[in-house]
Order: sequence, then structure tokens, then C-alpha cells
Amino acid sequence: MTDDPPFNPALLPAGFVDLLPTDAEAEAAGMEDLMRVFASHGYSRVRPPLLEFEETLLSGSGAAVAEQAFRLMDPDTRRMMALRPDITPQIARIAATRMADAPRPLRLSYAGPCVLAGGGARESDRQISQAGIELIGPDSPQADAEIVALGAEGLAVLGVPGVSFDLTMPSLVPALIGEGGYGPADRQALMRALDRKDSAAVARLAGGLAPVLTDMLHAAGPAARALEVLGALSLPPAVRALGDRLAATVAAIEARVPGIRLTVDPVEFRGWRYHTGVCMTVYAHGQHAELGRGGRYISNNDEPACGLTLRPEALLRAAPPRAGRVRVFLPAGTDPAFAARLRAEGYVTVDALAQVADPDAEGRRLDCALIASGGGVAALD
Amino acid sequence: MTDDPPFNPALLPAGFVDLLPTDAEAEAAGMEDLMRVFASHGYSRVRPPLLEFEETLLSGSGAAVAEQAFRLMDPDTRRMMALRPDITPQIARIAATRMADAPRPLRLSYAGPCVLAGGGARESDRQISQAGIELIGPDSPQADAEIVALGAEGLAVLGVPGVSFDLTMPSLVPALIGEGGYGPADRQALMRALDRKDSAAVARLAGGLAPVLTDMLHAAGPAARALEVLGALSLPPAVRALGDRLAATVAAIEARVPGIRLTVDPVEFRGWRYHTGVCMTVYAHGQHAELGRGGRYISNNDEPACGLTLRPEALLRAAPPRAGRVRVFLPAGTDPAFAARLRAEGYVTVDALAQVADPDAEGRRLDCALIASGGGVAALD
Repeated sequence: MTDDPPFNPALLPAGFVDLLPTDAEAEAAGMEDLMRVFASHGYSRVRPPLLEFEETLLSGSGAAVAEQAFRLMDPDTRRMMALRPDITPQIARIAATRMADAPRPLRLSYAGPCVLAGGGARESDRQISQAGIELIGPDSPQADAEIVALGAEGLAVLGVPGVSFDLTMPSLVPALIGEGGYGPADRQALMRALDRKDSAAVARLAGGLAPVLTDMLHAAGPAARALEVLGALSLPPAVRALGDRLAATVAAIEARVPGIRLTVDPVEFRGWRYHTGVCMTVYAHGQHAELGRGGRYISNNDEPACGLTLRPEALLRAAPPRAGRVRVFLPAGTDPAFAARLRAEGYVTVDALAQVADPDAEGRRLDCALIASGGGVAALD
Repeated sequence: MTDDPPFNPALLPAGFVDLLPTDAEAEAAGMEDLMRVFASHGYSRVRPPLLEFEETLLSGSGAAVAEQAFRLMDPDTRRMMALRPDITPQIARIAATRMADAPRPLRLSYAGPCVLAGGGARESDRQISQAGIELIGPDSPQADAEIVALGAEGLAVLGVPGVSFDLTMPSLVPALIGEGGYGPADRQALMRALDRKDSAAVARLAGGLAPVLTDMLHAAGPAARALEVLGALSLPPAVRALGDRLAATVAAIEARVPGIRLTVDPVEFRGWRYHTGVCMTVYAHGQHAELGRGGRYISNNDEPACGLTLRPEALLRAAPPRAGRVRVFLPAGTDPAFAARLRAEGYVTVDALAQVADPDAEGRRLDCALIASGGGVAALD
């Protein structure tokens, strides 16, 4: 390390940012729009805290995200606490404890910030927002479909164009490989080849499963074709059951959201953490970043659950900008009742706070398009 | 310490809580209502991060809250970071750096959680929400009045009854005592007596200032009478100027918000941190907890500023409960277009997800008051 650079008061730690007016408003409004859609379908909002004891937050479904968490000591109890890197495990905890007696299906929603310790990848966000839903109790294609349908409805409300859901069954490939009788090293090499979508290596390493795995690799794409390929393969019964469940979920989604864009990648298995069933990743055309992800998992107390977490920062980049509201400058002496009426009509009013020599110029300087004048408003241009 | 108790998965660190459905929804809706009021008066939302480098977050106006902050190390840079105990110093930083060139008056708003390390007071909250405004640039009674007016309007929108603002000028007593020629020990004893509102001790300790200080002690109460008492006192010019400014702020508030309930405590000086001018504490009749507090301070770069921070948790207790929306159970096969229409009309719809033997009973079990049936809705009771 060299000497510390001179202190820069504007410097924030890597991965932490200020959202300035337009972005901060858009993010907050987008989150509330999503929460409104979720609430309209019976999803009740809960708000777990930003930090918990490490042994609570990072156990159960939280264990999968433990390495991403910042720890700090509770000065009171000397026990370690952790900042949440993910809200879903907190919802699982609430469902299994304080809401254990609430009727199932239990539909919960949440929105708030999470903090990731980061792994030296300095360019990535370490404070992220999450807005999501969890459907706890039922294990059915219809439950999976409700989660996808609500995600799609939320994104439509935000006006995000070209949304698609990529569906996977991360347990399918491990189940198939598990029946192949590979030694540990071969198995690992094959999994790596599948993860890289390296069909030449898969053909070389997979032995008797090579034709099936190669066909599955090539099947990735629009749901109808992928399921057709998957349906024609000869699969052991346990693997076939996973494929059939994936197909049933696709059918349930299409029945609930006609015209939705679905893709299926039957080989994808990486990057999933506590998920055990159908998983989904949300994309928008032309956007590199995922807009959200979710899927089916076993919640605390062995309850089946399915959830989806949307990423407001990514949505902000994918959604069209919101129209700003028109600002009206109020010179000293403007009738307060008139100003209140302007606000009720949707205008933003900006009070002069003092007499100024040139109210028009002052209004323009303060980014107002209109000025209150003689009981009405006049344009400033 | 005794042995660790058996691990309780529902246990949260003292001062951190889960908000369950009704409270979480009320808190979020209340925050957004406040932010809407602030936005309608030209206050633009910013969203600083949950944590910053310690030297940024806890310098300047942040120094006053430094002892309340949790620290943690940035694994990347090995520099200490701190979780924010207060958002106002972050707004001051943004105003002085990234928004240094934005026109003044600069009106900013913010809403979000803060984390306090806590000082062993196990019963108090360590995660608090803040929703507030800062008006940066002008130093005038009109600017002070705008802050109070917006707070009052926000609380009125939430329906909080019996709101009053208690105004103080924390620099007044120290300025007066400073002119009294006391030794350090006498001064300290006198300040403590004033802080305890112990008029007998004040009379004994204050020497020549005893009549003035005793009158000031007794003046605390409704603004008109307090200012009348204060106006009649013989005060040194520098102290008189502070009293006059307090009176001018009261006049500006009453002009802007006719009928507002204002009290003035000319002696109060404790508990203020970075504030340098008129300060305000918000109360509601019958509520012990403060609903918010704020006041005038010198922001970064020596800019005058005035702000107010409301405490959504306290507002939640003071505001009338929000009416819940009516839940409509949708048996399997309900027309999706009809369900969408119900949601557009403000109903919450709860999908059955499967055929059930007794839809009415299932709807009641899921807390629905209505059930979709034959293209309409029927009561469940």
C-alpha cells in the first residue's frame, strides 16, 4: 500500500452510490408500483430488519448467501450479527415463526435494500434493492405460474419492453448425471462442460448419455421447442418427472399469461442457491443485466415455496423514463389556497420565500416552466 | 455470563423488529404519503447509501452522531465504514458535492432506514426509519416556516390528530449565560439546573440573571404568551437578536399555516446536535414519543440550512389505522379479465390456485369478504 491519498469528501466505498433526484424518484416510484401490483393479488407486505443475528440470518435457506454477508458485533450481547445480503431467507423465517399459524397459501411481499460484502469485484453494486414476493405452502405448477404472472404484470405496469422469463430446472442435469454411473472426476469434468455449454466436450465426456445431453444443450431456446425436444428424449423416470414438472409449469404460465415470452434452458443449473424446483430469470430485450430471478425452494419447516425477486436498479435502466411533473414558481404573496389547488391538480409548486426583483427570472433559475400570476399561471420561456 | 441459551430461530437482536403485514403496509404507505407532500412543494428525492466511509459519514454535521454509529471494515480498502445513524449529514454531503452547482434554494427529501449502535438501552429501537426534508441556501424565518408548514401538511395528510410544534432556540441560553461572567463550575451547575427546569436552583445559582432566567423558565408554553414574556425581558443585544429571530420564525409560521399549534420553550437547549438556529420538535396529543424533529444548522461549505426529519414508526402509532382493502376469493376458472377489473376497482383478488371442494369455506379461510361467482361477486359470511 502507498500513502493514503488526500481525503475526498465525495468518495463513497466501491459499490455504494448516491441516487440523485431523477433516479431516486424513479426507483422509489417503481418499487411502489410493483408493491401495489403484488398487494392487489393478496400479497401482504412484511418488513424484516436490515440486520439479524448471524445464526438466524444465515442458517436454513440463508446459508447459501452466508459468504456474501457483512458481519458486525452486537455490543450488547457480543453475538455476531449480519447485514442481510438477501431478503428471501428473512421471509422464510417470518413465515415459519411469527406467521406459522397464518393460513396457507401464505402470500408475502417485501421491498428494501440489501448489502453485499462483495468479493473484490470492485465494479459491482454492494447495496442493492430488492422487491419481491413469496408464495408459501402450495407446490404446484399453478403456484409457479402465479409468481411469473405477477412478475410479468409488475414489469408491464413499469412499461419495461421486451420482457422474457427464462425457465430452468436446476435439479434436472444433476439427477440425470447421478444416474450415469460416473466417477467423481468424470462427473465434475462433465458438469463443467455442461456449465460452459461446450457440446464437443460433453459429447466426449458423457459416454452413453452423450446423445441425450447434446440434444438437451441444443434445446435451449423458446419454450415450445425446448419442451418438444425434452419430451422426445428417453429419460429415467425420476428425471422424466422433473422434465414433466417443468412442462406443466410452462403450460400453467401460458394459460395464465397468454402471449408471455418464455424460454427454457433444460441444462442450466449454475448460480442457484437454495432453489430446488423450477427457477426463473427475468430479462428485457437489449438489457444485459437480469431484472430479477426466483424459483421454487423448500422454506423453513420443510414448507414448499416459490418466490421472485426483482431488482429495482435494473428495472430503472430498462423502464422508460417517467415524465417529470410541471413546476410552478410562486412569487411572494401568491394566494396559498390557489397554490394548494395547483398541487392538487398535480403541479409542483416552488415558493419564492422572499420578494425578488425579477420573479420570471427567478422562476426560470429554479427550473419552473410556469409562474403563478394574477390568480392563474403563465408560461416562463 | 451463563451458558448460551438454546438457539431460538425467531430471536432478533434487541431494537430490531419485523413489521408484519398491517404495520409494514401502513409504514410504507405513510412514508410515501409524506414523500408525495414534500415532492409537491418542489422537494426532490435523493437516496444516499446505507453506509459510507467513516471519515465522510461522521465528519461535518455527522460528527454529532458519530458515537451512535456501527462501524465495519471495507474488506477491499481496509478502511472503516459506518452504517448511517442519521440521513441529514448525507444530504449535507450531497448538497455540497454532487449538487454543489444546483440552484439555491436547494430542496431535497429522503426516506429510508438508519441503524443505531445503541448504548445498552435494550428497550429502544436500533433500526429507525426517517422521512425528511432539507432546505439548503436561505437563512430566513420564511425558510424555517416552509419546513414547519410541510411537516404540518404531511401529518395532516396522514390524519395525525392534535399535532403541535415545539420551537426552541438552543443557542439562546448559552449566549445569555456566556454574558453572565460565571466561573466554569457555576456555569455548569446553572446549565444543569436549567436543563432540569429547577427554578429554585436557578434562582439560587444565577445571581443577577436570576429574574430573567426564572421568567424564561416560566414562559415555556403557547407561543404567543412565551414570546410576550421573552419580549418584555431586558436582554443583551446578541441574546435579544436570537429571541427576535425566534419570534420572527413564529410569525412566519403562523402566517403560512393559520391555526397551527405552536409552543415555545425559550430555555430548552439539550439534545440538539448540529443545530445552530431555531429548532422544532413535533408532538401529537396523547403520544409520548416525538413524531419528528429538526431545525436550522450550518451545512457543509458553511451553507445555511433548515430541515425536519419525521419518524414513520412514531407516526404509525399516532395516525388512525388505514382501512384494509376488501379481499375477493377467485375460485378456479374465474375469468381473468373479470379479476383484473376487480383489481382495477380497488379490490384485492386471491386466486384459489386449484379446485377446492367448498370454495366459500376456502375463501373465508383466506380472509376474503367476497367470492367471485357467475360474473359478479357474492358476500362470504
